[in-house]
Amino acid sequence: MNDVPHPSSILDDRVHQKARLGILALSSEAKAVEFGYILKTLELTSGNLARHLDVLEKAELITIKKGFVGKRPRSWISLTTAGRDALASEIRALRAIVDRVERANSLTSGDD
Amino acid sequence: MNDVPHPSSILDDRVHQKARLGILALSSEAKAVEFGYILKTLELTSGNLARHLDVLEKAELITIKKGFVGKRPRSWISLTTAGRDALASEIRALRAIVDRVERANSLTSGDD
Repeated sequence: MNDVPHPSSILDDRVHQKARLGILALSSEAKAVEFGYILKTLELTSGNLARHLDVLEKAELITIKKGFVGKRPRSWISLTTAGRDALASEIRALRAIVDRVERANSLTSGDD
Repeated sequence: MNDVPHPSSILDDRVHQKARLGILALSSEAKAVEFGYILKTLELTSGNLARHLDVLEKAELITIKKGFVGKRPRSWISLTTAGRDALASEIRALRAIVDRVERANSLTSGDD
């Protein structure tokens, strides 16, 4: 134990929230990621995904480009530089949390 | 890219929420952790911490024991077995997310 702030205290709720963390993480894997791919990989409903994309777009962490494949409308999601930086900060904080919990416990090597 | 579910999709919001993750992580470091210590280490307000403790207690992830040090009331927070298991699952999922993002990117080694 010590009294320095725990690494969870620096997490940003815009980025840490489960669905948004998934969206940002997936979007970091390619220049642009298609809406339907995110939908399937994160197991979200369309409405729920749209709502979280809206939060991320308003926070200027992603851009959304709309277009067509044949006659079908498609949306491609890309990280902005701010989005990439925000994800990097989140990942650093998560690693610090994981390392600290694992150091203090044998949690993940147990027989649960 | 692949179409298997992203590790973020298995996160449990009761455990993943920033303050609650901090509470569970700190509580895993000792048999019991005092309210004031959590308050200071997570940089929360009393009301906010009390609200999150209530969520975790109702979910049976922690127990809260009230007592006194001299005349001062004190609360000690302990993980239940279910709480310890839930934290272990969260930590495993976070490690999978971190590993996947770091594999796909040079995010955390960049010059940001």
